[in-house]
Amino acid sequence: MIHPSAIIGDQVVLGEGVVIEENVTIGDHVTIGHHVVIKKDTQIGSHVEIADLTVLGKNTSSNKKMARKPGKQLGPLLIGDHVRVGCNSVIYRGTTLESGVFVGDLSSIREHVTIGEDSIIGRNAIVETNTTIGRRVTIQTGCYITADMIIEDEVFIGPCCSTSNDMYMGMGNYEHQGPIIKKGAKIGNNATLLPGITIGENAIVGAGTVVVKDVLNHHTVVGNPSRIIKK
Amino acid sequence: MIHPSAIIGDQVVLGEGVVIEENVTIGDHVTIGHHVVIKKDTQIGSHVEIADLTVLGKNTSSNKKMARKPGKQLGPLLIGDHVRVGCNSVIYRGTTLESGVFVGDLSSIREHVTIGEDSIIGRNAIVETNTTIGRRVTIQTGCYITADMIIEDEVFIGPCCSTSNDMYMGMGNYEHQGPIIKKGAKIGNNATLLPGITIGENAIVGAGTVVVKDVLNHHTVVGNPSRIIKK
Amino acid sequence: MIHPSAIIGDQVVLGEGVVIEENVTIGDHVTIGHHVVIKKDTQIGSHVEIADLTVLGKNTSSNKKMARKPGKQLGPLLIGDHVRVGCNSVIYRGTTLESGVFVGDLSSIREHVTIGEDSIIGRNAIVETNTTIGRRVTIQTGCYITADMIIEDEVFIGPCCSTSNDMYMGMGNYEHQGPIIKKGAKIGNNATLLPGITIGENAIVGAGTVVVKDVLNHHTVVGNPSRIIKK
Repeated sequence: MIHPSAIIGDQVVLGEGVVIEENVTIGDHVTIGHHVVIKKDTQIGSHVEIADLTVLGKNTSSNKKMARKPGKQLGPLLIGDHVRVGCNSVIYRGTTLESGVFVGDLSSIREHVTIGEDSIIGRNAIVETNTTIGRRVTIQTGCYITADMIIEDEVFIGPCCSTSNDMYMGMGNYEHQGPIIKKGAKIGNNATLLPGITIGENAIVGAGTVVVKDVLNHHTVVGNPSRIIKK
Repeated sequence: MIHPSAIIGDQVVLGEGVVIEENVTIGDHVTIGHHVVIKKDTQIGSHVEIADLTVLGKNTSSNKKMARKPGKQLGPLLIGDHVRVGCNSVIYRGTTLESGVFVGDLSSIREHVTIGEDSIIGRNAIVETNTTIGRRVTIQTGCYITADMIIEDEVFIGPCCSTSNDMYMGMGNYEHQGPIIKKGAKIGNNATLLPGITIGENAIVGAGTVVVKDVLNHHTVVGNPSRIIKK
Repeated sequence: MIHPSAIIGDQVVLGEGVVIEENVTIGDHVTIGHHVVIKKDTQIGSHVEIADLTVLGKNTSSNKKMARKPGKQLGPLLIGDHVRVGCNSVIYRGTTLESGVFVGDLSSIREHVTIGEDSIIGRNAIVETNTTIGRRVTIQTGCYITADMIIEDEVFIGPCCSTSNDMYMGMGNYEHQGPIIKKGAKIGNNATLLPGITIGENAIVGAGTVVVKDVLNHHTVVGNPSRIIKK
């Protein structure tokens, strides 16, 4: 089903069962896989590939227990030129994927997120709301990127890393702040980052580390709790 | 395809390509997303929203190596009023979601599970069979909730926590017992819980902790292995 | 949509909205769920069950930042007799699932992977490219199996384990080597394995362990970093 208001460019290949809701725009030389759902207002650039069974432009939802209520009207999902999105993924309204971004299969990106040019979001990775990711960042498979994070350019986050943004674990209306990861830092697989910590420029966090305090520029930490092994 | 035996209430919105198998009932004011599959016997209350590309009422399956064979005939999947289920999720037959439950995108809930009123199952979270989850529980994104667990009311489980229920890791036909998490306990992100341990009422488990023995009521533990830092 | 070049056996049940691309072969007594996408050249044996909303035979993709470019033309996806694949999963071209393999919901298996007879790939598990998995292996829910791993027969990997294959975290063109896990070894849940380590035959890795060096045959390790507790 293609809504008659959709604007679709030249040389666009649409799979079987694609749903395009109202007010969608798609550039030239775009490939959309089978059973993809493109929700209303989504804007897709040129030379983009969206794989099968993916949802673009989902709106937020909540139940009465959730602290963070859906806010005011979200803008559209904006997808830049040359973006690739895998199968069975879900990307929300109000988010921007800049040109050349790669999003793997089975991943999910919430609203109010910006992902910079040529960055990689691995398969099965989750990015929560209100997080900014720079250019040429690698977020590997299975990472959990919490809300309210800042990830600068050229950061590398290994597989299955976990972050958090609520020191009080739902106990009250405290301000939430995710980790801040400065330019060029590298995080090993399955590391755990506590709320609000800063990982400095070009710092290294070893695999499996539980990072309980800030890591200075160029320092290396390992262990549970994290301890410095190189300055 | 909507099977003629389906009973569908008033003001129900069905997306494109929805499949409704035999003997399904859907209440009033329900929204079903595109390409959703509702398998036979599923019962859905009123004011429910099911997002795109989700499967409701899946039957179990196994291969010859699996210890836990599918049991006798499972009852239907029961979905209460005001439930929300995200995109690309899979929920099995024989399970009950009580009213107001929220299930995120890309999550999966097996058979013989009960989830209490207003509880939250985060995106990409997995709940195994034969587990009971109380009311107003928060299970955050990416958690793995093993089989044979008991999670009481108002528990908070941070992102990416992992649990297990088999001390012998497949070595024999020992009894399986997942962790028991008592009322109001809070578990930090990426914590690891061993089989059969009990986390006491209002206890706190720090992020990245490997919990190797019981935690008493109101105690706080951190580290690998877990040690008490507050009684 | 079924491409006219497809060869489909006897007693095959196809769900609604199934897409079968060119040059696919399907054996006898096969069940294909709703909205399944079977991409070109895929070869499926007999007595196979593929659940709803799954993609079989996906081709690789990349962006300009990715080190590992898609190689030469991949062979087809080969699925043996009696294989079961869950809902919302994604399996790539160039991979072989031997007879009796079970793949859970929401999982993903890349190209150039072989999975031996009767092995289990749990729900939400990810297997990267160029990895070989033996017979009767259990990889539980949520595991991340990196590229360039060797997993021998009868290995057991508990839920949410994480592996890596790049000691330099994207810093250069070093050779990548994932862990090697020898016959009968058992890995506890949420363990972290560093690149290139070997876990010996029948060795045991405790839950939450960060394995930083080789584990000898029959040894048991726990902790962060891993230390021997039994020889």
